[in-house]
Amino acid sequence: MDLGEIRLIPVYLADEIRPGDDLLQKLVGALQHQKLALANNDVVVVKHKVVSKSEGRIVQLESVRPRKSATLWAGRYGIDARVVELALREAKRVVRQKNGALITETRHGFVCANTGVDASNVDGGTTAVLLPENPDRSAARLQSRIKKTVGVSVAIIVSDSFGRPWREGLCEVAIGVAGMKPLLDYRGKRDPHGYQLRATAEAVADELACAAGLVCGKLNRTPICIVRGFRYQPGRESARDLIRKKNDLFR
Amino acid sequence: MDLGEIRLIPVYLADEIRPGDDLLQKLVGALQHQKLALANNDVVVVKHKVVSKSEGRIVQLESVRPRKSATLWAGRYGIDARVVELALREAKRVVRQKNGALITETRHGFVCANTGVDASNVDGGTTAVLLPENPDRSAARLQSRIKKTVGVSVAIIVSDSFGRPWREGLCEVAIGVAGMKPLLDYRGKRDPHGYQLRATAEAVADELACAAGLVCGKLNRTPICIVRGFRYQPGRESARDLIRKKNDLFR
Repeated sequence: MDLGEIRLIPVYLADEIRPGDDLLQKLVGALQHQKLALANNDVVVVKHKVVSKSEGRIVQLESVRPRKSATLWAGRYGIDARVVELALREAKRVVRQKNGALITETRHGFVCANTGVDASNVDGGTTAVLLPENPDRSAARLQSRIKKTVGVSVAIIVSDSFGRPWREGLCEVAIGVAGMKPLLDYRGKRDPHGYQLRATAEAVADELACAAGLVCGKLNRTPICIVRGFRYQPGRESARDLIRKKNDLFR
Repeated sequence: MDLGEIRLIPVYLADEIRPGDDLLQKLVGALQHQKLALANNDVVVVKHKVVSKSEGRIVQLESVRPRKSATLWAGRYGIDARVVELALREAKRVVRQKNGALITETRHGFVCANTGVDASNVDGGTTAVLLPENPDRSAARLQSRIKKTVGVSVAIIVSDSFGRPWREGLCEVAIGVAGMKPLLDYRGKRDPHGYQLRATAEAVADELACAAGLVCGKLNRTPICIVRGFRYQPGRESARDLIRKKNDLFR
């Protein structure tokens, strides 16, 4: 009996992604190797790191000259001042800077640690990966190219791992979305008892990113996950819709 | 080629769960109906609402007399003062109370809206469901009973939907965990490039809850999801380990 089972299928990329690489070509090659084909209504979740790398959003750390305040602050907590410098350069504003943690708002409007700048997972740790300039655009491009080249309609999510207030550990979140509504709005709908739901909306794009995170480990080369069987609502919304604009009590 | 695919299998409960109901029996019956069997290393994610109901954590709203401050505040925003009263009774402390939103810390230590008190999804909306008294204990009991009765070792997650600062929409989180480590610690591990990861830990229990949320909709009767194929780390930790105790910049 099929009641709507969902499959999370990891895609294994054998090669390191480098600036200028065609991510679609890498994806198609990997799928062929795994004897898999994209299908209509798949959600393709891509870790931002491979998107950033293909778009050349990599900085050689040796080229970064940290400002004095970054050097002083980083030195106090034994962290790399050049990463702090990049985080400050990439930030729209600093939300909190305390106890060695730097929480900022990115130019896109996301609130996260170090403006998403990440010195791990890149050759030897001498380089840093920045967030894509416009993750929604990256997602939209991949989506339309898949439509043209492979001939299927999919949704794309570009994801990153963010920390959260009050809770330990990182969770994946959607920072770029194309082809689907990132929020599933229940307002006005009725539950199985006929009770009208007062609740707001479910952040399905973030839940999809989390689900993909279960198969896209940090220690293996599976930066892409195909989520098959989730009935998303097609739409032109973007990950910007996931940013709380008003009534945020913690901004 | 199997590189670690994960399946999210919804479990359909035909009957409404009522106080005193045996959740294990309901689960086993539902699985038989779906021609499914639990397997070793499955993660069983259960929406807290069915756990709360089976444990009798239901309050008739007509029996609740709200304190004056609750009536005044609720009246200003057109919300049910009795729900506010219950939320205040169940809370350890109020984190924010503004613009009709009441964010509290539960006795367990979770920070969420209305102390998790929910007036939706219960017959006619005249009752409210509270969080389980001890969701870790609920999870542990279900886990050990499955081990005894069905003979398989599974992990259990009890989940609820929480809002988040800065981001729109609700996401599922783990409020009870048994049989697995809720955090996957990467510290000291090396990525495919041999780079030592500085990052902290991944909140896999929350990601599992989110994944389950994709098949456990609010509008259908599938409050349980079996996650099959995720290689969790067995452990005696609990959902309390997901609560940030120190270095929380937003408490």
